[in-house]
Amino acid sequence: MRVLGIDCGSERTGYGVIETDGKTHELLAAGVIRTSAKEAPEKRLLRIAMGLREVMEKFSPQAAAVEEVFHGVNAKAALKLAQVRGVALLTAAEAGVPVGEYSPLEIKTSVVGYGRAEKRQVQLMLQSLLRLDRRLDSKDASDAVAVAVCHATRAVALLQTGFSGRGVGA
Amino acid sequence: MRVLGIDCGSERTGYGVIETDGKTHELLAAGVIRTSAKEAPEKRLLRIAMGLREVMEKFSPQAAAVEEVFHGVNAKAALKLAQVRGVALLTAAEAGVPVGEYSPLEIKTSVVGYGRAEKRQVQLMLQSLLRLDRRLDSKDASDAVAVAVCHATRAVALLQTGFSGRGVGA
Repeated sequence: MRVLGIDCGSERTGYGVIETDGKTHELLAAGVIRTSAKEAPEKRLLRIAMGLREVMEKFSPQAAAVEEVFHGVNAKAALKLAQVRGVALLTAAEAGVPVGEYSPLEIKTSVVGYGRAEKRQVQLMLQSLLRLDRRLDSKDASDAVAVAVCHATRAVALLQTGFSGRGVGA
Repeated sequence: MRVLGIDCGSERTGYGVIETDGKTHELLAAGVIRTSAKEAPEKRLLRIAMGLREVMEKFSPQAAAVEEVFHGVNAKAALKLAQVRGVALLTAAEAGVPVGEYSPLEIKTSVVGYGRAEKRQVQLMLQSLLRLDRRLDSKDASDAVAVAVCHATRAVALLQTGFSGRGVGA
């Protein structure tokens, strides 16, 4: 199964594509779509949509996964993030790709085995899981790959127990 | 100038199209794009995007306007709304239509002349401003027309003073 993970952000949206059987994963691509704060909000969203569409066209993922938006810390930032998330969900729907949604806790647990893991632990674990020569140095790309791995792990578990592929938080 | 107002909502997204010179306005269309709670979030967003694209194709607005997302009351609802808003902004950007963003206060002030006006006052004022036989009975369509009228009024004022068309809250 090919899974696209997306880490939404209005300035930097990370993406990661893995080929996976639920246990072993191969990294096909990882990167960041950047936008400029000088642009109007709608133009930034357009840039993100175009970037994600390009990735989906190139890699034809069978599933996509995003992190749930975290509210509480900064309401304004959360709302901006949610706008990007809306665009990410839309581009997946346009490509006919179902989307799983996962909490930060679920993502860390599935990658590191510990829900309160540090960013660096996640990066090191991904390096090991994906047999990479070095760590994914972009935090955004790393977070995107982590959510893809989370979906891969969960989707296989869910297939085995017969549930649908949407995350708990949906 | 032709202005499209959008009132975002994950269940009901209102839209209203007016032809305006900034002082007198003619209502060309008003309606609601409905989605079902039974559908996956990304499918609901796709339905909203398709609905808004259809309206933009049919009426070719020169500007669009949306209400700012209200945070504070219900964080989860605000995030859902922001996702729809991201989709609305994206569809406008795709159509090359610039977007104005206005606070509820700005919208009510420009329609009724009083920022704390009741919904019913807004509806009655719109009926009068647009010379309609009866009130717009859908709250969502009415809110969408109100933001279009707000943009029309503000855009003319801004053109006269030489500022760009984006609302204060942008």
